Order: sequence, then structure tokens, then C-alpha cells
Amino acid sequence: MNKSPDAHRMEKIVSLCKRRGFIFQSSEIYGGLNGCWDYGPLGVELKRNLKNYWWRVMVHERDDVVGMDGSILMNRAVWKASGHEDTFTDPMVDCRSCKARLRADQLVEKNGIKQRPNCGGKDLTTPRAFNLMFKTFVGATEDESSLTYLRPETAQAIFVQFKNILEVSRKKLPFGIAQIGKAFRNEINPRNFTFRSREFEQMELEYFCRAEEGMRWLDYWKEERLKFYENIGIARDNLHALTVPDEERAFYSKGTYDIEYDFPFGRQELEGVAYRTDYDLSQHQKASGKSLEYFDEETKQRFIPHVVEPSAGVDRTVLALICEAYSEDEAPDEKGKMETRIVLRFHPRIAPIKCAVFPLLKNKEPLVAKAKEIVALLRPHMYVFYDEVGAIGRRYRRQDEIGTPFGVTVDFETLGEKDPALRDTVTLRDRDSMKQERVPVKDLPGILVSRIS
Amino acid sequence: MNKSPDAHRMEKIVSLCKRRGFIFQSSEIYGGLNGCWDYGPLGVELKRNLKNYWWRVMVHERDDVVGMDGSILMNRAVWKASGHEDTFTDPMVDCRSCKARLRADQLVEKNGIKQRPNCGGKDLTTPRAFNLMFKTFVGATEDESSLTYLRPETAQAIFVQFKNILEVSRKKLPFGIAQIGKAFRNEINPRNFTFRSREFEQMELEYFCRAEEGMRWLDYWKEERLKFYENIGIARDNLHALTVPDEERAFYSKGTYDIEYDFPFGRQELEGVAYRTDYDLSQHQKASGKSLEYFDEETKQRFIPHVVEPSAGVDRTVLALICEAYSEDEAPDEKGKMETRIVLRFHPRIAPIKCAVFPLLKNKEPLVAKAKEIVALLRPHMYVFYDEVGAIGRRYRRQDEIGTPFGVTVDFETLGEKDPALRDTVTLRDRDSMKQERVPVKDLPGILVSRIS
Repeated sequence: MNKSPDAHRMEKIVSLCKRRGFIFQSSEIYGGLNGCWDYGPLGVELKRNLKNYWWRVMVHERDDVVGMDGSILMNRAVWKASGHEDTFTDPMVDCRSCKARLRADQLVEKNGIKQRPNCGGKDLTTPRAFNLMFKTFVGATEDESSLTYLRPETAQAIFVQFKNILEVSRKKLPFGIAQIGKAFRNEINPRNFTFRSREFEQMELEYFCRAEEGMRWLDYWKEERLKFYENIGIARDNLHALTVPDEERAFYSKGTYDIEYDFPFGRQELEGVAYRTDYDLSQHQKASGKSLEYFDEETKQRFIPHVVEPSAGVDRTVLALICEAYSEDEAPDEKGKMETRIVLRFHPRIAPIKCAVFPLLKNKEPLVAKAKEIVALLRPHMYVFYDEVGAIGRRYRRQDEIGTPFGVTVDFETLGEKDPALRDTVTLRDRDSMKQERVPVKDLPGILVSRIS
Repeated sequence: MNKSPDAHRMEKIVSLCKRRGFIFQSSEIYGGLNGCWDYGPLGVELKRNLKNYWWRVMVHERDDVVGMDGSILMNRAVWKASGHEDTFTDPMVDCRSCKARLRADQLVEKNGIKQRPNCGGKDLTTPRAFNLMFKTFVGATEDESSLTYLRPETAQAIFVQFKNILEVSRKKLPFGIAQIGKAFRNEINPRNFTFRSREFEQMELEYFCRAEEGMRWLDYWKEERLKFYENIGIARDNLHALTVPDEERAFYSKGTYDIEYDFPFGRQELEGVAYRTDYDLSQHQKASGKSLEYFDEETKQRFIPHVVEPSAGVDRTVLALICEAYSEDEAPDEKGKMETRIVLRFHPRIAPIKCAVFPLLKNKEPLVAKAKEIVALLRPHMYVFYDEVGAIGRRYRRQDEIGTPFGVTVDFETLGEKDPALRDTVTLRDRDSMKQERVPVKDLPGILVSRIS
């Protein structure tokens, strides 16, 4: 069977991620660990840029949001109160012939009989609830008293610290608490590269408001979050805000949007924007016996606030950024022959490396010295990469493939050897258009900072 | 018994951390979880600033280091090969009278008999090895085949990806791989606030080099790391580089320095700088059967590199920064009466909030509007806080207590109402000296950026 163009495209993306150091399988030399991934030198920079931009727009640029960073291990009582211990499950079936375990809701139906999608096995056990939380024991004994879980979402850390943060931050409704951190789900079938992982990172905001304003803030945050994805370079046409139907929403939610992206493997969720009402805070107030109420100084009322939660997946967004950026076009090689060019068209704001600096030749000391001067000039402002190895065209191509938006080349004109008027100017190359402009060295920081921020 | 001045000081620091939102007990409303902590709105900013500065000097400003970000869950084979499964233990004893569990090496000896430091209990079990790794099961079964651990250190993720990263980064020896991430140790007795936690974050560099250069790089990194702590505001006098004696070093280490800090609760380790030789890579090469050798293009030799590891604790360093910054002096209150002022003298580089902006009065619209303009002017460059509530002196005091280095006040002179020459100037107040200078609004971004970077 021929692969679909989308499957072929995805294969090329996965291969590039490995080849250029964006993403590796965790523990690869030992055969990996299913559902766990490591970010290499470029992946970690991309992820950092994404998280830092999220923090900037969601926390630093707003007067109504503060941040926090909670622990992954929490008291088990949190997960009893939130409902996760009883109900955070997927229906699991075993295939009696091949012993595989799979999600009952991912079976296919053929002639009225549920089957495994791959082997077609029909001898399946009846589905049973499988809790997705990873267990561990904290302390020196291994029994019920020391059992807890790796958090399956970061949100609960915010809810249980709501009162503390309300007090120290002196905020009035509406206001939000933001957090970025790891969460863990023991997925029955991790798949689609890093999309469905067992270990993943979330960027979550819990935005607390009055009950009567919940639906308004739900729509506000849906729009804000769509803008966010556009601002990191994802085309609006590839984004979709799905209104989750009543029967598919969590029972406590009064409204949820899924923000989806057209991955090569299908349209899939990047972020959920959910109006969770006062469910979580009420549960924790009941279970802990501690008041989680808000006191309104004007109306003198006490009440549990409602909350709207935009919850984004860091790894999913990184994957969407790479999928969105991946493209192939034609460019001339050193001899002028056209060849296929792989280029990651990252928005400069999130590109791992902002600018590459090249001396035209590596064995000409004045070119090398000048290039290193420029590296030192730019470094306080951005992540810069110096490369002197190989023909200049190959060096450009290597940077195109990892999405570096700008390339600066130091040539003999920079040294003033040809035209004194061009002394201390360099060529500044744009990754996407491949056009080059001549720019004075002293203007470089200003020009580049304005283009990457 | 009276408390020692140091114990009293530590109590005040812990109290400030809670009161102002630096650090909370994890799951506090449920009685907490021993050894786990949450960072509140100010704590998360302090921690971010520390980690970002580390990444900047350890990765971005260097040509010889790249980053990575590995998963917390790894294949169990990693921990067999590294030796952690067999030997990462503390000796544990039980007190038969009060049932407490404690570390055998933390008992005190009195009249030749080992005793519990607190209750004086002498009826102790013989010490047994307690493995500090948290266990969990990955996948749908709970048995030996699916058992693994939460990583007890981030270093091993770097070692097992050494070959992948070497290939994609095209680096030559010496070069390093840096990582910041969480690690977990099931400590028998978590203590000293966040100092000895069960969940913590590490900032680690593995710096690979030739065997013959190992001792030189060990000394180089000890010096670099000491400079780092000075650059974030820790006085050199409070830092100590301890040469770990032969008998206390890991058997594979050829030399280790502990960088220690004078905490109020004693001199304790912030960072270990260890020359780990080729032990880890050799172990993983042997266990995985995959070559982890480096190929030297000049000498045509293949060999396993040696490694020097500066490994710093994020949470410990955050705690050291707060302890170092905490001070009390005298300042006049609104009526000129001297009162005690609590001030966190953070280096501006790591202070959670860089600048607070105040309109002199909150009910004068032009003052408020101008102050908000200044917030918008500064925000692209730094984390800014706007406060209009209370007398100006009280607002200064609130910022002093959380270590905000600069305060900008918009007054009637800013509006040009008194002296037209002072229009569009503000007072810029320095936290430590409490001195105020008059500065044109348009110069603020430049002045502040130069002082905080």
C-alpha cells in the first residue's frame, strides 16, 4: 500500500527531528521507553522560546495574572477530591490472541463486530476501567498510607493553592493563576510521535471570575488563545475552535472549546479552553474543610469563584510548530544547479537559533576575527550560532533546515578591501526569501532585535 | 531554651516566604506532603530568573555547550547500568519505642551509645539499606517488567544521549551538554525547609574532555561556578569550595569540590563539581552494547571521553538567595518615626519584580494615566508591577520586603504642574540606599535595563 502524502510528510518531519537534534526517543540506547521523549539541543531551545513567550503574554504583560510552580508529587487527598482517583480512567481491553492491550474506544467496527484496527483480532476481553495515574510511594513504607500519584494535570496545584495566592497577591476578581509544568498519564497506547505521550508538559491558566461572567470569559480566552497561536507562526487556516458538544463535556463544565490543529496525522487538540464552573474549588473546600471562598469587599459577599481554564500542551504545540514550519522548495546549489531545500519557516520569535554568523573563509584570520566580534556583539541580545565549516552555501542550507531566520556573512568587503565605503558592513540573509541585504555591523543588534521580538 | 540568633533568623525567612508568596507547602490545605514545596507568584519568578541566568551563561554565551531536556521517566536499564538500582541507598534505622524512621548516619553518640537526636531513644533496629528512588509502573501491568523509577538525578539523561547529541551538534572535545530539570529522592528525613526536599530541580552540566585534561577542567569549573554565585549576589565570604576527601568521594571520581553556602542552619552544599572520569559512559556502553566513543579526527583514535560535572540545586540556590538577601534596617515611617524595615537585597538580575510603578495618588486620573503609560513603556523590557493602593511609604515598604530594586513614582511634578522643567520626569528610588533621583521618563528603559542585566 502506498503511503499517503501526509504520512510521508510526517515521516520526513520525524526524521528531521532526530537528524538535527530536536527530539530523540528517551533512553534510546536501551530501546526507549514508550511514550517518553527527550529534547535535543534545538528542541530544548524551541520549547524554551515557546514557554517563555507564553509566560510573557500570559503573566508578565498582564496586571490580572500571577504565576506559580507546584510540585509534581502532591498529597493523595488532592486526587480523591478532584475525582481523579475514582474516574480518571480509559476503558481498556485485552486481545486474547496477541495479548496486546488497547483502548476500547479505539477499536473499529466491521460487520457489527468490534475488532483491533491492525491485526483484526476479535477475541477481546470486556472493557475495564484503567486508571491513567502513575502510582508511587512517598516515605519508607509501601502501603496505602504512603501511596500517591504523579500529577495527571497541573491544574489541581493551582486550585489547592488558590487561597494562599489570593492572599499574597491581593488580587480582585477577575484574576488568573498561571503555571507551566510536567504532568504524567499512563496512556494505554502512546502514539503520533510526541503528540500522545506519557510524560508531557502543560501551560495552564486558571482564570477566576464571578459566576455570571463565566461564559463571557470563556469566549474571551478562546479568542486570546487563537491569537497566541497566530503570534507564534501558526496559520489561522490550520487552527480550529471546536465547540465541544454537551454530551462530550465533563459533567461540571458549562462550555468547552477545543483548539485544534491540522497535523499531518489528522486534526487534533492543542489546547482545551474549559469553563469549569466552581466545581474544583468546591470539591477541595468540601474535602479539606478549608474555606476557599472569595470575599467581595464591595458587596460584602463570600462565594466560591468560577473558573475558565485555557490549558495548552507544550509538547503538542512544539510538534505543531515543527509541522507548520516544515517546507521544501528549490534553491541553487554552489554550481547554480537547482536542488530541493528543506527549510523550517519558524516565526523568528520562537526559532531556536536567531542568527548564524559566518566568516566567508575559515582560513582568513581577519574574517574569522571580525565574525567572532559580531558574535560577541549580538550575544547579549539573542542566541547566536557561529559556523566556519564548509562552503557558505552549505552553511546556509544547514541553518535553513533548523529554521534560523537570519544569517550574517563577513566577507572581504567587510574588511574594506574592495570598496572602503563597504567597510564594516555585512550581508544579512533572510531564510525564507534567501535575499541578502548589505547592513552596517553597528546596526545589526537593532535590526535583528526588532525582527525577533 | 532560647533559640539561637540563626534559628530565629531562619524562622523569619520562612515566615516571609509564606507571607509574601515565595514558597508554600505543597498540598497545604490537606496537611502538606513531606519534602514537597510549591513556589508562589514571587518564588516562581525568582526561580525563573535564576534558571534563565544559568542557561544564559552556561549555554547561550558559550560556543562549547549545548542544551537538552530529557524525560523524568526513563528505561529502568539506565538505573541498573548507572549503579543506582543497587547502591543509591541511605542506611535507615527504626526507633522501636516511637516508631520513627531515621538515617543511621544522623544519629548522635552519647556515652558510646547511638541515640536519636530528639527523643534520645536507644532501642534502634540495625541499619538497613533503603533505596532512595521512587518506583512506578509504566504500562498496563504492575510487575517487574514495567517497573521503573523517577530519575534521582538529571545527569544520566545526558549520558545516555551523549552519542546522539555529539552527532547532531558536530562538537569537538572539550564540549558540554547542559540540562535543567526535576529529580526525585525519597529522602528518609526531608528537612531544613526546601533544602533537603524529595522533589527538587537540578541545573547540571556534563563537560566532556580528554582524560589528561580532566583535573584542569575540574578546577576551571570550580572557579567558574564560584563566579556564578557571586554574579547572582552571593557574597564570596559566604561561599566555600570544599575539597571532598578521598574517602568520601564516589569511587569513580578522581576529584570533587563541594561549593557550600553559610545557611542560617549551617554550612551546606549548593553544588558539587565532580570529575566523574569515564565511569558513566563506560557503564552505559557496556550495558547497552552501543558505542559511546568519541572519534578524534586528528589522531584517528576512538575513546570514551572523561567528564567533569558542575551540578547545582535550583531550590537550594533559591533558598540561599533569599537567606543572603534577607536583612533588616531602620527607615522612617510616614510620620518620620524610625521603624524596622525588612528588605530583600536581591541582585537586580534575579529579583522577581524589577520595577514597581506608583502614581502618588490613586484618585488623580492624570497621575494614574501617566503611571500606566510608564508601565506599558517598561513592560517589553522587564517584569513590572503597578501599585496604587495605600500611602506611598507603605507601597515602598511592600516592595522592599520582596526585593524589588527600583521604584518609580509619578507625582505632580511629572505632570508639569509645579515646574515645567520637571514635566515628564519621575522619581526613581533605589531599594537599598532609599535614595531618589529625578529621571526623564524617556530615559527609564535604558537606565533600568543597564542596571538589571
